[in-house]
Amino acid sequence: MAEDRLPDEFTLIRRYFAPLATHPGAAALGDDVALIAPAPGLVHVLKTDTIVEGVHYFADDPAALVARKLLRVNLSDLAAKGARPVGYLLAASFAREMRESWLAEFARGLAEDQRTYGISLLGGDTTATPGPTTLTVTAIGEADAARVPRRSAAKPGHDIYVSGTLGDAALGLRVIKGELRGLSNEDADFLAGRYRLPEPRVALGQALIGIAVSAIDVSDGLVADLGHISEESRVRAEVQRDALPLSRAARAALATDPGLWPDIVAAGDDYEILFTAPSAAAEGIAGITRIGRIVAGQGVAILDPAGKPVEVKTAGYRHF
Amino acid sequence: MAEDRLPDEFTLIRRYFAPLATHPGAAALGDDVALIAPAPGLVHVLKTDTIVEGVHYFADDPAALVARKLLRVNLSDLAAKGARPVGYLLAASFAREMRESWLAEFARGLAEDQRTYGISLLGGDTTATPGPTTLTVTAIGEADAARVPRRSAAKPGHDIYVSGTLGDAALGLRVIKGELRGLSNEDADFLAGRYRLPEPRVALGQALIGIAVSAIDVSDGLVADLGHISEESRVRAEVQRDALPLSRAARAALATDPGLWPDIVAAGDDYEILFTAPSAAAEGIAGITRIGRIVAGQGVAILDPAGKPVEVKTAGYRHF
Repeated sequence: MAEDRLPDEFTLIRRYFAPLATHPGAAALGDDVALIAPAPGLVHVLKTDTIVEGVHYFADDPAALVARKLLRVNLSDLAAKGARPVGYLLAASFAREMRESWLAEFARGLAEDQRTYGISLLGGDTTATPGPTTLTVTAIGEADAARVPRRSAAKPGHDIYVSGTLGDAALGLRVIKGELRGLSNEDADFLAGRYRLPEPRVALGQALIGIAVSAIDVSDGLVADLGHISEESRVRAEVQRDALPLSRAARAALATDPGLWPDIVAAGDDYEILFTAPSAAAEGIAGITRIGRIVAGQGVAILDPAGKPVEVKTAGYRHF
Repeated sequence: MAEDRLPDEFTLIRRYFAPLATHPGAAALGDDVALIAPAPGLVHVLKTDTIVEGVHYFADDPAALVARKLLRVNLSDLAAKGARPVGYLLAASFAREMRESWLAEFARGLAEDQRTYGISLLGGDTTATPGPTTLTVTAIGEADAARVPRRSAAKPGHDIYVSGTLGDAALGLRVIKGELRGLSNEDADFLAGRYRLPEPRVALGQALIGIAVSAIDVSDGLVADLGHISEESRVRAEVQRDALPLSRAARAALATDPGLWPDIVAAGDDYEILFTAPSAAAEGIAGITRIGRIVAGQGVAILDPAGKPVEVKTAGYRHF
């Protein structure tokens, strides 16, 4: 491809973004604003997130995967709140080196996940930047405000649950970096996949409406995210270490190197739903594990089988 | 100030952003999402925009002014659609050199304009970037969808109107750059102020509900923005050059150098409302000027008093 620089802004929007604006309120990006209303009785659920090239993803990551992860990370926040995803706005600042072929792949990734989650591009802004490409998504869902689980709603006596398995994404990043050896190809691929492309628990989040009282998605790590609930709810979270759900691949990795333990409880990117509910309320929902309980007090403790707190080294990813 | 680096993310949010989240649906940023609903019968009006340090503003611009301009540019889009502003999400990627004192001033500017426009911070994301500071606002308003003026709704026979005066911001930028001399201090200050801090026509936009049929805010320049209406509506816009509303200061600048004419019609940043309406419909609304009419055809023409098209050199600001 001799010429792979970006076309002018209007061509770029017409070629790559307008076809993604399938919601009638987006007017195919033919206007300055999008008009959307939640379904009767529901409210809009809003979340914004930025990823920066070289910080949150790498220039040689497949562009379609970058697009899909960007959407999914935001949809995960909506999922934890039981919201039905509706669409998103995309503000993109493109680096001077940006190639049209990258953008074409990026748009293809957006289109693929728009189909997967039934969402539409609703609006956007494209600018040039002398710095790294910076991509901001504002995701919009809808939910029944009265039943949205909040960080601040955990109560002593609640059980603590988490969906899926923990630590896979952190271990997967080690696989990708070549730091984790001795795993079967299948296990290594599973872990790397969990890092590369999270699966926001959109359907589960909606199944938990009326069950989950407080909830958050695991993006900073179990201890840090449970810490957010503990802090906002002014309660103490006690987790049984041996109850934590681990994938076969994570068990294999831990068997090789028990020093990887912090990856399970203190690293993020799993994008599972962590929630609390009155005792036994969540029984019968597949794919979730009870991992502990909420008590009076403050802080988060991981307890060994003898009930003794296990020390956890780090407290999740901090941006500064 | 010996130590002026940014505090950690959570401190930063608690100290500067949480106090701005006054809307109950923002839960003082104590949760992952914001919950908001438009008033009964209305829809949400959404718009997103990014500014990059060194591209859209300069590192030594007063931080409070950067904040207010960022909000106002977005509120201007809502204003053109007759929307009542509600709030905004802010995604901020801070450069490594970012100082806390800058951020404190930035937050003060946000607070000031939140009061001016009756809006709230609704949510946000803060990240670090190795590049220039990059700030994205997603603004949210509410409006009656059936009466929102669209780019695509201009019809032959409509009159074309614009609020306020044109070209001041472009001339103001020249004043700031030292390119425009010979003006009185008062005129120079007026023009510079129009560039530094636009005044989105929020009240006028709401007064025009039911009158403006198609509308856009002037951010790319009269010719380019009228071009958007012309293109989306598949009509021709004919503007009388001598009808264009000019401030006293702009007249003075043009008298000194008639070569500045393109600043009036082809430069952006005025943030006035440009709209079309059936003949005479807008009479009686103060502060707006009829500048031309919509006819069958395509394109935009600026006509001299003899009805002859005037050539216009540029077509507004393009980002690539």
